[in-house]
Amino acid sequence: MKRVMINEIDNYINKKIVIKGWVYRIRKLKSITFIILRDRTGYVQCVVSNEFKLNTIKVEAVISIYGMVKESNNKYNGFEVDVEQLNIINNVLAELPIELNKENLEINLDTKLNNRMLSIRHDKVNSIFKIQNIIANGFREYLNNEGFTEISTPKLVKEGAEGGTELFKVEYFEKQAYLAQSPQFYKQMMVGAGFERVYEIGHVYRAEEHNTNRHLNEYISMDLELGFIEDEEDIMDLEERLLKHILTKVLKEGEKYLKILKAEVQVIEDKIPRVKFSEAIEILKTKYNKTGLDGDIDPEGEKLICKYAKEKYNSDFIFLTHYPREKRPMYTMPCGTEETHSFDLLFRGIEITTGGQRIHEYDMLIENMKYKGLDPENYDSYISNFKYGMPPHGGLAIGLERITARLLGFENVREASLIPRDRTRLMP
Amino acid sequence: MKRVMINEIDNYINKKIVIKGWVYRIRKLKSITFIILRDRTGYVQCVVSNEFKLNTIKVEAVISIYGMVKESNNKYNGFEVDVEQLNIINNVLAELPIELNKENLEINLDTKLNNRMLSIRHDKVNSIFKIQNIIANGFREYLNNEGFTEISTPKLVKEGAEGGTELFKVEYFEKQAYLAQSPQFYKQMMVGAGFERVYEIGHVYRAEEHNTNRHLNEYISMDLELGFIEDEEDIMDLEERLLKHILTKVLKEGEKYLKILKAEVQVIEDKIPRVKFSEAIEILKTKYNKTGLDGDIDPEGEKLICKYAKEKYNSDFIFLTHYPREKRPMYTMPCGTEETHSFDLLFRGIEITTGGQRIHEYDMLIENMKYKGLDPENYDSYISNFKYGMPPHGGLAIGLERITARLLGFENVREASLIPRDRTRLMP
Repeated sequence: MKRVMINEIDNYINKKIVIKGWVYRIRKLKSITFIILRDRTGYVQCVVSNEFKLNTIKVEAVISIYGMVKESNNKYNGFEVDVEQLNIINNVLAELPIELNKENLEINLDTKLNNRMLSIRHDKVNSIFKIQNIIANGFREYLNNEGFTEISTPKLVKEGAEGGTELFKVEYFEKQAYLAQSPQFYKQMMVGAGFERVYEIGHVYRAEEHNTNRHLNEYISMDLELGFIEDEEDIMDLEERLLKHILTKVLKEGEKYLKILKAEVQVIEDKIPRVKFSEAIEILKTKYNKTGLDGDIDPEGEKLICKYAKEKYNSDFIFLTHYPREKRPMYTMPCGTEETHSFDLLFRGIEITTGGQRIHEYDMLIENMKYKGLDPENYDSYISNFKYGMPPHGGLAIGLERITARLLGFENVREASLIPRDRTRLMP
Repeated sequence: MKRVMINEIDNYINKKIVIKGWVYRIRKLKSITFIILRDRTGYVQCVVSNEFKLNTIKVEAVISIYGMVKESNNKYNGFEVDVEQLNIINNVLAELPIELNKENLEINLDTKLNNRMLSIRHDKVNSIFKIQNIIANGFREYLNNEGFTEISTPKLVKEGAEGGTELFKVEYFEKQAYLAQSPQFYKQMMVGAGFERVYEIGHVYRAEEHNTNRHLNEYISMDLELGFIEDEEDIMDLEERLLKHILTKVLKEGEKYLKILKAEVQVIEDKIPRVKFSEAIEILKTKYNKTGLDGDIDPEGEKLICKYAKEKYNSDFIFLTHYPREKRPMYTMPCGTEETHSFDLLFRGIEITTGGQRIHEYDMLIENMKYKGLDPENYDSYISNFKYGMPPHGGLAIGLERITARLLGFENVREASLIPRDRTRLMP
């Protein structure tokens, strides 16, 4: 008999069906036992006579049930299943390290991550990844409609795009390779290769030594790059429209999960405020008496600037623009002698995007590399692209785990990583 | 003035527009010059008076043109652009290493790959990746509709899923890590984590020493795994429906690219023939006098079996089933004492899928690990999943570059990799 999914049972009132799933809860009364069964679509109350030998069934065991669907009024549905047959497909063999049948998983993050197969069974965990998928699909959907081509570029590379530090080394046969910090060089190449507009959703790797709640050593970067732009304003405009699309989609398709997670999402109504980096520094100094800035904005500074954006513009987002030339990689288009055509996007206290216009002229690129103290000879392959007709272009990258975490109100980015990798965690 | 894309010019007859793109071809006559401009949407003929100083413009330079659209009858369209202004946005600075304005790129594969930004500008190259995107989107679309959840699992792992060989080593701070050969352990975990049905389109890494036209050291694997199956027949049934969906989508959305590539695609009408591995060996021996089989089917054997499938069943595909236990990894569900509930799918001469039912019972898994000479202690984390209610499950993986290459008739899988990594190639 074909398995019926729990969210389809209401089509089978007074009929006999087979359902399969995990035992979520067992409550034994005098003559009957209630088993709450969970499958990927929901929960259902099943009523079992105590003539069944139920002693061996453990919570979270995989079982199948054959029984009659009857109308009923219970916590889960307007029906329940009167059990006629019950089979244990695969029982639980050891004590569960975490309790799953509570409204909240009352365990610390490490326990949650160490027991990942179990913790994800909890709705407050798996809903995070349902929302994350909606975000990624929103990114993909919007860009596909705007004429972008999806690309997949190598993660085994010979040179790093963001400078020589923070690279994981890989033994590549006789050679030394690295794990890509970003698809930067390749997405630029693909703009020049005639696709004009490209995006990639893929892993990037940062061998950062510090273990913070903001960093992962392997994370998912949603990258895009497009040609024939005027300047970085085009990229920020695009990101505004893109985020609007994503947030609208999350609200529409993710309603159920947002409710489970008690998360609040606000769609972007107006333009996202744009403030120059140098102005932001001034605001931090004068309005918040922030010290120790030293030409940079630290995590506390990011939080304060977001507070400012919320208070002044009622915006969860703020663009900081015109970052100093010395803070940005060699491929960033300079703006005057000190600044660049670049930006960060901060969201609820943290940077979730870095972007900007790139240099497309060969001579300027060589000059800027020298300004940054880099030897152009080490970037032969990258540089050669600029000899053969590279259009003006720019792009950005959004950290998928970061935007997910902030959207759902998690302080620690690990909560939004299915299987995180950090300074000490390589397992599971 | 806003840029008009070439495929929209026919809305602007007798109007003035701005177009931007690459110079595809220059043909100088006595008083006028024809410039064929290419953007991501197509080609257009532009007519320039020789009063313009055109000497400096090189083929493949990036230019912008302002001019009047006029009706015309030329090779490309029913219109042309009468040029009033022409600006060089970024010229070509060196001699082009390959000639792009021919019907075919008459260069060898290495030259094509060494000059990737340029070779992809050719329609016969970029069309490959347009088709590849349709394949991947078809995979995603079909599975989303079937209740699958997309996952993204770590590529930095502590243990290999397919055995200890062929792993790339990574220095992970003080630890030794490897690049994942497959998401096998994680996709099984995610079935058990309650998603029941999961898929991933992501990179996998094989440190294979040999350099063949069938292998890449980094490739894109389209993986899926689903729970509550009866046996591997469910997985093969799913793959039939999935491939039918993908091929129908390729025919519909990829028509233009298939034409450029002169590729023929046949939709699967009936069921894909299923032949036991042991029978296939017999067929190779008796029908094709194949020797040197030694209990395995080599590349030549795969070609012959596909020939057999074409002649006997008029099918481009054939499932080989019930692979010997000794040929399959430890997680494969045994079938009797010698065989397994597993299969390969061959397509036009090459294996494109490996799949099967997995072991879901703890004791059987431990026993099978020992049978395979593995120490269960080395797989602690993986094994622990089987103590807590793992449903019966199975899955498969399709190599994206391989299916693309075979669909389009390329012998070498590198043709279908945007930026391939092989035994010697780490650049570009």
